[in-house]
Amino acid sequence: MPTFSEISEALADQSIELPSWAFGNSGTRFKVFGSAGAPRDPYEKLADAAKVHELTGLAPSVALHIPWDLVDDFDKLGTHAANLGVRLGTVNTNTFQDDDYKFGSLTHVDERVRAKAIAHMHQCIDIMDVIGSRDLKIWLPDGTNYPGQGDLRDRQDRLADSLRQVYDRLSEHQRLVLEYKFFEPAFYATDVPDWGTSYAHSVALGERAFVCLDTGHHAPGTNIEFIVAQLLRLGRLGSFDFNSRFYADDDLIVGAADPFQLFRIMFEVIRGGGYGPDSEVAFMLDQCHNVEEKIPGQIRSVLNVQEMTTRALLVDRAALTEAEKLGDVLGAHEIFMDAFYTDVRSDLADWRVSRGLPAEPMQAYRESGYADHINSTRTGGIQAGWGA
Amino acid sequence: MPTFSEISEALADQSIELPSWAFGNSGTRFKVFGSAGAPRDPYEKLADAAKVHELTGLAPSVALHIPWDLVDDFDKLGTHAANLGVRLGTVNTNTFQDDDYKFGSLTHVDERVRAKAIAHMHQCIDIMDVIGSRDLKIWLPDGTNYPGQGDLRDRQDRLADSLRQVYDRLSEHQRLVLEYKFFEPAFYATDVPDWGTSYAHSVALGERAFVCLDTGHHAPGTNIEFIVAQLLRLGRLGSFDFNSRFYADDDLIVGAADPFQLFRIMFEVIRGGGYGPDSEVAFMLDQCHNVEEKIPGQIRSVLNVQEMTTRALLVDRAALTEAEKLGDVLGAHEIFMDAFYTDVRSDLADWRVSRGLPAEPMQAYRESGYADHINSTRTGGIQAGWGA
Amino acid sequence: MPTFSEISEALADQSIELPSWAFGNSGTRFKVFGSAGAPRDPYEKLADAAKVHELTGLAPSVALHIPWDLVDDFDKLGTHAANLGVRLGTVNTNTFQDDDYKFGSLTHVDERVRAKAIAHMHQCIDIMDVIGSRDLKIWLPDGTNYPGQGDLRDRQDRLADSLRQVYDRLSEHQRLVLEYKFFEPAFYATDVPDWGTSYAHSVALGERAFVCLDTGHHAPGTNIEFIVAQLLRLGRLGSFDFNSRFYADDDLIVGAADPFQLFRIMFEVIRGGGYGPDSEVAFMLDQCHNVEEKIPGQIRSVLNVQEMTTRALLVDRAALTEAEKLGDVLGAHEIFMDAFYTDVRSDLADWRVSRGLPAEPMQAYRESGYADHINSTRTGGIQAGWGA
Amino acid sequence: MPTFSEISEALADQSIELPSWAFGNSGTRFKVFGSAGAPRDPYEKLADAAKVHELTGLAPSVALHIPWDLVDDFDKLGTHAANLGVRLGTVNTNTFQDDDYKFGSLTHVDERVRAKAIAHMHQCIDIMDVIGSRDLKIWLPDGTNYPGQGDLRDRQDRLADSLRQVYDRLSEHQRLVLEYKFFEPAFYATDVPDWGTSYAHSVALGERAFVCLDTGHHAPGTNIEFIVAQLLRLGRLGSFDFNSRFYADDDLIVGAADPFQLFRIMFEVIRGGGYGPDSEVAFMLDQCHNVEEKIPGQIRSVLNVQEMTTRALLVDRAALTEAEKLGDVLGAHEIFMDAFYTDVRSDLADWRVSRGLPAEPMQAYRESGYADHINSTRTGGIQAGWGA
Repeated sequence: MPTFSEISEALADQSIELPSWAFGNSGTRFKVFGSAGAPRDPYEKLADAAKVHELTGLAPSVALHIPWDLVDDFDKLGTHAANLGVRLGTVNTNTFQDDDYKFGSLTHVDERVRAKAIAHMHQCIDIMDVIGSRDLKIWLPDGTNYPGQGDLRDRQDRLADSLRQVYDRLSEHQRLVLEYKFFEPAFYATDVPDWGTSYAHSVALGERAFVCLDTGHHAPGTNIEFIVAQLLRLGRLGSFDFNSRFYADDDLIVGAADPFQLFRIMFEVIRGGGYGPDSEVAFMLDQCHNVEEKIPGQIRSVLNVQEMTTRALLVDRAALTEAEKLGDVLGAHEIFMDAFYTDVRSDLADWRVSRGLPAEPMQAYRESGYADHINSTRTGGIQAGWGA
Repeated sequence: MPTFSEISEALADQSIELPSWAFGNSGTRFKVFGSAGAPRDPYEKLADAAKVHELTGLAPSVALHIPWDLVDDFDKLGTHAANLGVRLGTVNTNTFQDDDYKFGSLTHVDERVRAKAIAHMHQCIDIMDVIGSRDLKIWLPDGTNYPGQGDLRDRQDRLADSLRQVYDRLSEHQRLVLEYKFFEPAFYATDVPDWGTSYAHSVALGERAFVCLDTGHHAPGTNIEFIVAQLLRLGRLGSFDFNSRFYADDDLIVGAADPFQLFRIMFEVIRGGGYGPDSEVAFMLDQCHNVEEKIPGQIRSVLNVQEMTTRALLVDRAALTEAEKLGDVLGAHEIFMDAFYTDVRSDLADWRVSRGLPAEPMQAYRESGYADHINSTRTGGIQAGWGA
Repeated sequence: MPTFSEISEALADQSIELPSWAFGNSGTRFKVFGSAGAPRDPYEKLADAAKVHELTGLAPSVALHIPWDLVDDFDKLGTHAANLGVRLGTVNTNTFQDDDYKFGSLTHVDERVRAKAIAHMHQCIDIMDVIGSRDLKIWLPDGTNYPGQGDLRDRQDRLADSLRQVYDRLSEHQRLVLEYKFFEPAFYATDVPDWGTSYAHSVALGERAFVCLDTGHHAPGTNIEFIVAQLLRLGRLGSFDFNSRFYADDDLIVGAADPFQLFRIMFEVIRGGGYGPDSEVAFMLDQCHNVEEKIPGQIRSVLNVQEMTTRALLVDRAALTEAEKLGDVLGAHEIFMDAFYTDVRSDLADWRVSRGLPAEPMQAYRESGYADHINSTRTGGIQAGWGA
Repeated sequence: MPTFSEISEALADQSIELPSWAFGNSGTRFKVFGSAGAPRDPYEKLADAAKVHELTGLAPSVALHIPWDLVDDFDKLGTHAANLGVRLGTVNTNTFQDDDYKFGSLTHVDERVRAKAIAHMHQCIDIMDVIGSRDLKIWLPDGTNYPGQGDLRDRQDRLADSLRQVYDRLSEHQRLVLEYKFFEPAFYATDVPDWGTSYAHSVALGERAFVCLDTGHHAPGTNIEFIVAQLLRLGRLGSFDFNSRFYADDDLIVGAADPFQLFRIMFEVIRGGGYGPDSEVAFMLDQCHNVEEKIPGQIRSVLNVQEMTTRALLVDRAALTEAEKLGDVLGAHEIFMDAFYTDVRSDLADWRVSRGLPAEPMQAYRESGYADHINSTRTGGIQAGWGA
């Protein structure tokens, strides 16, 4: 097994994009609990995100969600970010909160609604042009709740046509990333339910269309690391939405539900060339901090990714290959587990200190006074949430 | 196989309680779509429910949800219902929308919050006393999102103590019905996740405590009709919350996702003595009409239950028993399917006409002008939803 | 809704291939129960299959499994089939019962084993040439049981190379059909686990490579009819392996577990152009009759497919399209369910009689004396099963 | 967090029973791969099990499976075990491999078959009397494959009656442990499918009837540690069958698929009083080493349980309780994860050495020459498997 110092240089390559919406309120259909200090606008969201990056060195960019993060002047927002030490990243579309999208957006049977959704995405690309984003990420709520409600096949054809109209608007240095999801909010048929669908549309669109893999968007039991390996092999893994789940799309902190799964995913990312300076795979969080504090929730999340990346880098791949050749199942498994079971936390603390970061970011946050600060100053106004 | 006329008398025994909240707006965490004509208060909800009963003869009672259906004068509400031809039924507690319940209600580690939840349930019993309800139905959002967050064992002990305090307040003719749910809104551990837990608490409480089986609250693949048969055998099946699902707790129209499953459930209800004048099992809908019209959605639902009950009554049980004794697997299965595949719709239409009901309730509703009426008169005010 | 007579002509287009191995013994890892009258060789299997076709008119061809159905003289076997009124169809490869395949076949890390597996498939193609088969169907047991055991990525690369070597051996009128499976016999990672993988390999191979969809090979909750629609749209649906399941790959009689799902699948097949004289989609059973009688089990199966095809043909598609345009969710669902709930059995009985077939094939089989005949004459020898 | 030395004494309390059948061959319905050196009789199985105990100090007893482990003289077998340094433990019944049990055993509709199954269990109790076993463990294959095939309710009644007849034969110091399983080999309805069913029967039987929890026998997503906590609370957790799974009942090495889950389970065991000298909970492996070596597979398994038990003992429970009271979700989770992420392997190696055991049992086995010994001496005869 390599030593920590042998792999520590590779750790500097890691960056995990934060979602602006993780700092606002979120919840379930039953209840959204408010939280003291929640940001009231995109500027405050960026401040919170910058705090995460300041303490971890892992999160230099922030994804936006349109229209939640619409501002009058995106140049000003970009400058604000830069002043805070972060940059604006992926732009996420939203076609699920307007009454017009009750029966779909890019797949809608009504041309008026479909054109509206496409226009929304064009608007997002315009914003990307201003802020210098590379990726347009499309997740669609489109689907049907009852058998017979919609024509599954026609919906795919309209989807292909809509995506084409969006894709063609992109500049050469921009990418379209199509996210799939097993179910929710549609409960019978979802129009982009699996990686195969996302992949087939990406290939049809062109070289700058990719698949977004949200770790919470699969059927029970799905081997996610296999999909990672396959998409890297096919050259179509565009980005990750990290989170974790026990049941459906729980949107829990990444690595909280199944740390070993996160380790396996990061191992396939690394083995498949998806990690490092030459990779164009984007790593992002997409979580809901319903009952836990949001800023430390994000800190915990990027640390979890870092810790599992570290362990995955420690795997003795040469030994693994040798064991496979020998048919030594237990030996191979043991080599793999040896890395997973290695406690890298104190090495990582040292590594942080060597880079001018706090040894223990969670503790540093608690001691920073930032929570008290925002709790006392962010009074009045409307807290940001999924509606704004 | 019995003929329709041989079983038609038994159809008169059927009544399915409607949930008042089905007529208000509902949705997913992503969006609640409003709908024209949605009721603004419990009085209007009852009017809508009464329309369903008027057209189907199947839904003589309406369940209330407190505090959503709180009114100043429950006597008056009861009279209103009676005037509409229906009655008030089960009272449902709600401990998931107050900020205090962020970490639980009957299981909460803080005695103040737990006492508040118990007091809420006592208030519900007071309402039951006024309106003459038999059943207090308790569904709890209680649970935890992260391993380590709560002490699973202590939460059970507090739950037992809380339920005891609620149960002891009931009159002799009242019942406590404890609903279980696989997950949501809690995503790691739910405090009443399965029928075993509901059953164990019911037995500990006493003879008037029962289990509520919501057809959408199980792990993937669970054989629900087995649970029905088992709970009837153990004498603890209190009530049903009918709906259907493809994935999680989708809350779709009962019978829409898997009509054969509904048939199997009704068959076990009948075989186990849960159907008919001597049974105390309550049948209720608990659904969300997110994208479809609400009143016809309820009509469709009670008709689905009636149709599958009819088919289940048609099963030739003597022949089935004989086939089982012979080890004739295909023969038994064929006897069973024969009833399921029998199209009972026109017989049911005739049966309705013979009882002064419209032959086709869905069509009768469309032709009734009721939708136009409420759409044009229910203007202004705040539409009812999960928040009110 | 169309009338039965309007759609009955289309029923003549239906043919469902029977698997030779359905007539032999099968079971679970716990036990294989023997059954009286089980065939001892491929000739007797064909006789049983021919009986199913004789009584239903639905099953004119029989799939072979190599080496289970290896005979000295395939010409003779083909003549035997023709004399019985059936023909030989798809050839299925088997790389799961030789000790060499413990760690894989087409994906094996050892070139010797991989070459052996490829040679086996070449042998199958040679047999296809003799008997005039169109389709080589490949289902692989390949996968790993423990994280770390194998290199997921390399296994895909070897798979691609192996498939290329197989594909290139095919004649121009032959096809390669690659079946995917969620899990079993591998329990950690399966090398062809989903339709996306099968599709990606098919596209890479060429125009005569297709996906085989086994209805029991998906994760819990997967919307199978969506995959059907998608693969037809992409032009890569090669064939079906029909069966049904409640849990894993139960291999129960198609339509037994969820008849409504079979209806939805057949509806998408028809809507997508996969049904009828111009379609090249192959329909086949792949089931295990562990506890029920095998020949009537196959009769029941083809009848189930026919019944659900009939109902699916009855759907009023124009009305459905109209309802979708209006956003009439309940209306569309009702149009769809109307066809599903229509009892087509007596119409089908008449249709059979009009074509010289028995009205009730299950009853006709019971009365035919065939079971007694094979039970009394097939004595001695070794019953066919998965091992031979 | 406690130090290792503070909890190391508690480690001495751990013992994990080995299943005799883990040393024989096993597989899937597709193939059972043979392995060199596999034992040919119960005496050789005990020798293999004793080797595991010799190297780990964790496995002092061996469970038997009747009739697989039937011998003429159980006294002699017990003496053989004692000479090897182990003892005979739980007796497992087998009612799934006789043709008579095709449609069930303790639930069978035919009184003759049911009596035969009961008699088999009485025979097992007789063996328990001879060898001094405490636990009779009953896992049943009973169930049905097709809706309609069996009367679910009657099957429960017969099950209750059968269990009563078995239970009444036990001595006062003996226990009946009833195992539940989600599915397989039955694919529609299993007669003991969940803990609720096992629990209800246990309570009905009496104080010496308990539930056996096999970690692989649950629906997807089931929170197993909740069931552990609940059964301990109800006083009915009799024993564990340890293994792990990604999909169905994969029977992989415990802790291999989800080590964090094993940690959570052991934590609830400890928190609920199920661990230590005063507990009567039995811990046992029940696994299939289909592709990996069997003896080191068992060594790896008991080490996994030990490692996760160690981590679970390290949880700072007082701090956890405090964090819960404060509603500090992230704090509580972090306390919990801190123990899980602690690498206890070198401490455990030291602990082993201090007790005269090899520091690294896996390595010690490889260096012991035992594999070569059995491979070369166990030639001829029939290898043990599930059939013998």
